[in-house]
Amino acid sequence: MSGESAPAPKSVLARGLSLLDAFTPGEPELSLGELAARSGLPKPTAHRLLGELVDWGALERTGHGGYRLAAKLFRLGQMVPRYRMLREAAMPYLEGLQRASRENVHLAVPDDLCTLFVEKLSGGESMVIRSRVGGRMPAHCTATGKVFLAWGGHDRLRRAVDAGLARLTPRTIVLPGLLHRDLERTRERGVGINLEEAEPGVTAVAAPVLGAHGEVVAALSITGHTRRLDLDRCGTAVQAAAGALSAALRRDTPPRPRAG
Amino acid sequence: MSGESAPAPKSVLARGLSLLDAFTPGEPELSLGELAARSGLPKPTAHRLLGELVDWGALERTGHGGYRLAAKLFRLGQMVPRYRMLREAAMPYLEGLQRASRENVHLAVPDDLCTLFVEKLSGGESMVIRSRVGGRMPAHCTATGKVFLAWGGHDRLRRAVDAGLARLTPRTIVLPGLLHRDLERTRERGVGINLEEAEPGVTAVAAPVLGAHGEVVAALSITGHTRRLDLDRCGTAVQAAAGALSAALRRDTPPRPRAG
Repeated sequence: MSGESAPAPKSVLARGLSLLDAFTPGEPELSLGELAARSGLPKPTAHRLLGELVDWGALERTGHGGYRLAAKLFRLGQMVPRYRMLREAAMPYLEGLQRASRENVHLAVPDDLCTLFVEKLSGGESMVIRSRVGGRMPAHCTATGKVFLAWGGHDRLRRAVDAGLARLTPRTIVLPGLLHRDLERTRERGVGINLEEAEPGVTAVAAPVLGAHGEVVAALSITGHTRRLDLDRCGTAVQAAAGALSAALRRDTPPRPRAG
Repeated sequence: MSGESAPAPKSVLARGLSLLDAFTPGEPELSLGELAARSGLPKPTAHRLLGELVDWGALERTGHGGYRLAAKLFRLGQMVPRYRMLREAAMPYLEGLQRASRENVHLAVPDDLCTLFVEKLSGGESMVIRSRVGGRMPAHCTATGKVFLAWGGHDRLRRAVDAGLARLTPRTIVLPGLLHRDLERTRERGVGINLEEAEPGVTAVAAPVLGAHGEVVAALSITGHTRRLDLDRCGTAVQAAAGALSAALRRDTPPRPRAG
């Protein structure tokens, strides 16, 4: 977690950037004292660097002497090519899946040992689930994450097991042998399934999206109430959408002109 | 534009950050030479600072000795509270508008003299338009931007006129007097309308979203082919959705727990 205090980095640039690492989705506003403590910087140094981050637009001051992440980071984040092109290519397929299933649909990419949600459309009549665009979840207990572990090569899986399989619910798979077997079934079926392994009552099914060279670059998933989600039907739908998106990425249509 | 070369900023942190400003949506990959030229930094300095930005995760190296924006910025950008909370509150209304209209729908916020697109759902059968999530357009020639100018106070409008009303199409309103009259009609009607003023053949209609204190915090819009878009029907739909979203923001439901 980035919330822990750490030895102060050496260069001025790294020190300034370390202040941004102090923010988490659950704590979008921090005081000077909290920022100094988390970054390991003396208060006067933190104060000066925070002023520069405000001037540049990465942070803004709150009414109560605190700081929060600001517009410039949103704009830069949306320009990150890896996510931008994938999101734009995937959006029609996500919308189709959402219309067909009326459940929550996600586009996720592997991010080291986690799954990172790049887009989410919520099912109008579906349940509220805790995923968040830009949020990460451990791979071993999510449908999209299992896709990345199943087709991501031995090294990623070994590192995930070495890092420890955290228990999120009573149904999370925390034994390496069971996880190996589950991933084998994932490869056989062609879809990753999460049966209340990340959140009680919530089931998800995900299929791999392949890049131009056949490597898994992303996953599409449908998530909903365990009682209601028809795994067969949703699994077929998500596989069809992921296959169509993979074909679109293979065709590698040249990017259209965009004026923003 | 951030693509122009500028005098090098003074502090090391500001110099490092200025390298990130060199990237634009149209140029997501830049070489060391380009980055040095645009930031006004000597090549060896730029090279050292770029290395630190790579280490932190703001940039990644491309195969050809270049640099591009990377994952950390996407994750931080998605945590920016102003956009995150608004987007989450707006998503059900955007999806409803999209289902009802089958056209492109946008959520935008004012960003100085521009309109900044925070979310976009594309109409399955609708046309491809050039807007982009995280992209900005001048306010005076967009439906959402006109909402921000019409209800944004005299100062914003005066500054927009002073900055010059750029012509994007033959139908862009570039005369201050005509713009004033158009904004008066916008306030009377309750919706901003863009009639091919930003892109030939493209019409849009937008309604204001009010925050807890009655101030305009965002706008919802529907965008489509001029020939096909029913302005009356879409205007009514977008006003209803913006009104419902405003009421939801006023109720100020406490944020739900999110595990990411």
